[in-house]
Amino acid sequence: MINTQLLNPSSIAVIGASNDLKKPGGHLLKNLRSGSFNGTLYVVNPKEEKVQGIPSFKTVQDLPETDLAILAIPAKHCLEAVTILAEEKNTKAFIIISAGFGEAGEKGTIWEQQIVETVEKVDGCLIGPNCIGVITEYYKGVFTAPVPNFNPKGCDLISGSGATAVFIMEAGMQLGVSFAHVFSVGNAAQTSVEDILEYMDLHFDPATDASIKLLYLETISNPKKLLKHASSLINKGAKIAAIKAGSTAEGSRAATSHTGAIASSDMTVRALFDKAGIVYCSSREELLSVASIFNYKKLNGKNIAIITHAGGSAVMLADELSKGGLNVPEITGAYAEKLKSFLHPGSSVANPIDFLATGTAEQLGIIIDYCEHKFENIDAMAVVFGSPGLFDVENAYNVLSVKLDICNKPIFPVLPSVVNAQREIASFLKKGHVNFPDEVVLGKALSQVYNTPKPTTEEVKIPTIDTESIRQVIESAPQGYLSASKTEQLLDAAGIPRVVEVIENSKEKLLKNMTGIDFPVVMKVVGPIHKSDKNGVVLNIASKTEVAETFDLLMDIESTTAVMVQPQLAGLELFVGVKKEPGFSHTILCGLGGIFIEVLNDVAAGLTPISEPEAKKMVQSLRGYKLIQGTRGQQGVNEELFVEIILRLSALVEAAPEITEMDINPLIGTQRAITAVDTRIQLGE
Amino acid sequence: MINTQLLNPSSIAVIGASNDLKKPGGHLLKNLRSGSFNGTLYVVNPKEEKVQGIPSFKTVQDLPETDLAILAIPAKHCLEAVTILAEEKNTKAFIIISAGFGEAGEKGTIWEQQIVETVEKVDGCLIGPNCIGVITEYYKGVFTAPVPNFNPKGCDLISGSGATAVFIMEAGMQLGVSFAHVFSVGNAAQTSVEDILEYMDLHFDPATDASIKLLYLETISNPKKLLKHASSLINKGAKIAAIKAGSTAEGSRAATSHTGAIASSDMTVRALFDKAGIVYCSSREELLSVASIFNYKKLNGKNIAIITHAGGSAVMLADELSKGGLNVPEITGAYAEKLKSFLHPGSSVANPIDFLATGTAEQLGIIIDYCEHKFENIDAMAVVFGSPGLFDVENAYNVLSVKLDICNKPIFPVLPSVVNAQREIASFLKKGHVNFPDEVVLGKALSQVYNTPKPTTEEVKIPTIDTESIRQVIESAPQGYLSASKTEQLLDAAGIPRVVEVIENSKEKLLKNMTGIDFPVVMKVVGPIHKSDKNGVVLNIASKTEVAETFDLLMDIESTTAVMVQPQLAGLELFVGVKKEPGFSHTILCGLGGIFIEVLNDVAAGLTPISEPEAKKMVQSLRGYKLIQGTRGQQGVNEELFVEIILRLSALVEAAPEITEMDINPLIGTQRAITAVDTRIQLGE
Repeated sequence: MINTQLLNPSSIAVIGASNDLKKPGGHLLKNLRSGSFNGTLYVVNPKEEKVQGIPSFKTVQDLPETDLAILAIPAKHCLEAVTILAEEKNTKAFIIISAGFGEAGEKGTIWEQQIVETVEKVDGCLIGPNCIGVITEYYKGVFTAPVPNFNPKGCDLISGSGATAVFIMEAGMQLGVSFAHVFSVGNAAQTSVEDILEYMDLHFDPATDASIKLLYLETISNPKKLLKHASSLINKGAKIAAIKAGSTAEGSRAATSHTGAIASSDMTVRALFDKAGIVYCSSREELLSVASIFNYKKLNGKNIAIITHAGGSAVMLADELSKGGLNVPEITGAYAEKLKSFLHPGSSVANPIDFLATGTAEQLGIIIDYCEHKFENIDAMAVVFGSPGLFDVENAYNVLSVKLDICNKPIFPVLPSVVNAQREIASFLKKGHVNFPDEVVLGKALSQVYNTPKPTTEEVKIPTIDTESIRQVIESAPQGYLSASKTEQLLDAAGIPRVVEVIENSKEKLLKNMTGIDFPVVMKVVGPIHKSDKNGVVLNIASKTEVAETFDLLMDIESTTAVMVQPQLAGLELFVGVKKEPGFSHTILCGLGGIFIEVLNDVAAGLTPISEPEAKKMVQSLRGYKLIQGTRGQQGVNEELFVEIILRLSALVEAAPEITEMDINPLIGTQRAITAVDTRIQLGE
Repeated sequence: MINTQLLNPSSIAVIGASNDLKKPGGHLLKNLRSGSFNGTLYVVNPKEEKVQGIPSFKTVQDLPETDLAILAIPAKHCLEAVTILAEEKNTKAFIIISAGFGEAGEKGTIWEQQIVETVEKVDGCLIGPNCIGVITEYYKGVFTAPVPNFNPKGCDLISGSGATAVFIMEAGMQLGVSFAHVFSVGNAAQTSVEDILEYMDLHFDPATDASIKLLYLETISNPKKLLKHASSLINKGAKIAAIKAGSTAEGSRAATSHTGAIASSDMTVRALFDKAGIVYCSSREELLSVASIFNYKKLNGKNIAIITHAGGSAVMLADELSKGGLNVPEITGAYAEKLKSFLHPGSSVANPIDFLATGTAEQLGIIIDYCEHKFENIDAMAVVFGSPGLFDVENAYNVLSVKLDICNKPIFPVLPSVVNAQREIASFLKKGHVNFPDEVVLGKALSQVYNTPKPTTEEVKIPTIDTESIRQVIESAPQGYLSASKTEQLLDAAGIPRVVEVIENSKEKLLKNMTGIDFPVVMKVVGPIHKSDKNGVVLNIASKTEVAETFDLLMDIESTTAVMVQPQLAGLELFVGVKKEPGFSHTILCGLGGIFIEVLNDVAAGLTPISEPEAKKMVQSLRGYKLIQGTRGQQGVNEELFVEIILRLSALVEAAPEITEMDINPLIGTQRAITAVDTRIQLGE
């Protein structure tokens, strides 16, 4: 519901403007006045004649028509002011700085709701309450410092926490990161981070708009909107990095106490980010490092040349890149020898390219030229160049600056001498570059960027399943666990192969009906939920006599209503499952069965609808993937069939969104078949 | 070989002193002159009458007797100068700044060796060559900037890379980290990082000496010395953090090109650091974060209160602490309610304690008092306090500063407003405090410190083993793989239970001699190394007839010399192994067998001699540990017996250091017994 009045208002009224610059209403007006706003600025303050030189209106009622109102008055007065503005002053955009709303208690929540209703009645836009404000190309509507210069090619920052937005800007400005739009959504009573991203997507012009989007989220209220517009933006050329705080139980409690948000589980969030192509970050430092990488040319391969006059940093960076799955390939051959001839004796070009403490700016330029033009196995360069404090390194940084502009391969500058080369670094940053002060922090962020998949662009081809039968089963079933027979019907309708089984509560019928099943068989109790806890599963039953004996034993177990007989399949135990987080589409999990889930928690997750490449990536990302491929002496599993089951599961829950939880554990997999052995399905509302 | 002449010389001669401050010999003299050196300063420069105002000697020959010489002349002239100084000028300490030695080629290596010999003849000390120099309480003998003020309670820094030392000091000074001694060992021709640590240990006075030691290592030439003196220092109250760069193949190549060092494998290095109690770091940032934590009071528990007026940072910090195994426990009860009454409405005390953007310095003080005195489930505090730029936060930082001095529980200050509160942070640091600008970086470092074990102080009780028999076997065996019978003898002598087995190359003898073994049995080929690759292992053999048939099949396999019969044991597959890195004691590995090693690489490592608590910790650190404990429906393994086997293995390789590689894979473990099934031992020199 972002509108032009919010982004480019012709008039702004500050309600609660003050002469006291220590007050939000004072500092905000100061920022607006010293910013680039060209429209008309009104102020409302009942006690002053003039506020910061601007004649003051005594009441909101006295104001002329105004596009945008920024409120910095106590929460209890906001509703009245908004009502007058919306209904009488043609105001279509509101930023409420004031705290004391939903985050403070019930009364505040009611005010918040009433304000939203009032704003929506006039099709208006509300940012906040409880936020630091908004910066656009046309005005600086925040009450905090610092106020970065609007750089249309800088980063758009959208934050669910005002203070965090401030700290991100402060830390970013030190590194040379520049900013375009800043939105602090506060309690997001009407406009959320996702809404702003939607607007940015629908209006994205790659020629003029900031291509880097940084998000700080404590809650994702509309995951589908986030997914849709993040991936769309990325497909249009934007780059997005985000922090989703509250990823652990402790963090969630903190998030809850902060914004009243219910945190979604981290695994689902990561699946969402992967699907959208968003780089997942855990700290301000990571977010800014990734933003800094985004600021440079695109990394199109994983082979990095490390260019340095300081060996130690190169070793640590090489370690980190290698840990993160990037390469520091050896550089050899005639061109390497030729390059060496330009460097001081003792220099190494094998990669890291170490041109010694006495290396010159000219040599730096030559090395970069060779990496750009001659070394075909190099995709990008990291240049670590500090200063021991003897002489000025301006020449070297000038060379670096020119190469950054000219070269096609990305170059990442690590300028670690934050004391010795403070002046030179400052002048380097003024040219619009960004610095990575710590090489390992760069290395980690490079891997994060490199390892984030592209957004899923494939038309997701849903396998053909029998939707009609699925709907019939679902609509006739009550909430809770599905019965065994309905579970079978769903698997059959979804085309997921399942083990043949016979369930009976009479020994005679069982023996009669199991004639088609080959020995050895497995027998299981029907009734109790945790079968294996109650010794309700018996393996290796080799004859009808044993079946008869075991039947009696099993029927004696508490809450047992019947006994099931299945052929005992041999193969690798696999697992697939479904989880449903509120607001998200279904999360499909896959993994190996048994200890891999219970002991190692080795599970991959993807959000529905899942495409074939996504399902493949899930399977291949498992730590136990080698077992699926087959290791020494052991046959693996038909990977295509496993992928197909994931896709069919995805199709099933699309057809039956009522499924809130589902496990197939185990699936027994061989090279020829994968068969569901034990399935549990839970329906919600 | 550190001596008084190096640490506190009464006279220093700078050979190659210059008036040009851009030259090492010029800048070094400037640093010496502006430092606190009270002794006599001589300079040698053939071309100048005076250097920086000091009358110059034309040649080294002209110098009077001098304690310490610092050489900044071309490598080829150093040997002559050192010889004259050592033999004629009673010089006992040398710092050679100059490069062009071992790192540059063969000629340099020879000069280096000759210089060491010359210095050792007079029992002297040599630092370098190819280093930035030394800073002690008495002089500033480095040619680089910045030159930190000597703070006897700051950090001692010992670095294998001069540039890295500079970058560490630069980054550290920005955070408020202060430094005491700085040693740059360069090529470490005579004096290594370990030697300096040894000296510090032998002369450690906790009352006057720096308790924080920071190490940057590219090679560990004497691991035992490092272990001995690091753990001894830590037991005396010191705290040590270290980077060992070159932990990956890529990093090692970088390290090799840099100092000619052969990198040790990362797992062994981590085992060494754990045994010594050294905090393992991977970057300058981590090293300095850990140093900053060391700077504060000791963390004695894992329960952290997060105190903040900025929710976002608190959520991210809580996430990170929780990931690292620390707690952010809920704070409830009467005192929590009481505390709440002092805060603004809407504040939360549940932990994170969020006292809102409008929270005051007084409230901060009260919160800290409650955490210090009233909340018994709190061991430490992290205070996140920035500034939105409206007003000065000096009051809050003053409160924090007083509490840092007074409180017994450690407090870690996160002051993120590096722009808005630049002045206030600077004044906070001037009081001797350290700042953590990023909360997540703090959180990670806190976990690293908390999770680093104490040095192994227990007298390692070696299990009694039959050393005499072991020596007999070893001394009679050639290098390479031990024969099956000698392997058995070693296991028996070490008291490691092994499976009963019969090996024969005649079918008749085999059938006759296997009468004591219960069916089912396993049969394996003897001869081929990778038995299972060649179908040389047959399971589930249930009768003598089957044994006879299988014998014929197995004997047909290439390079098979005999066939082995063992009882087929049921239980959990375990693994233990031994690796020997040059210079280190043996590394003992343990884990679960099969996929846990081959697929998951789930292995724990410890350095011999291994104590019982260390062995326990190894076992318990395995990802698959739950299987050893026993999970749902499956019996585990007798953990004490597993620990004992690790200890016996440790004792075995102590008695037989010739063992360079050893695997017992699998060991079959149950609640009653653990039995070695397949063992391979390799002897080196």
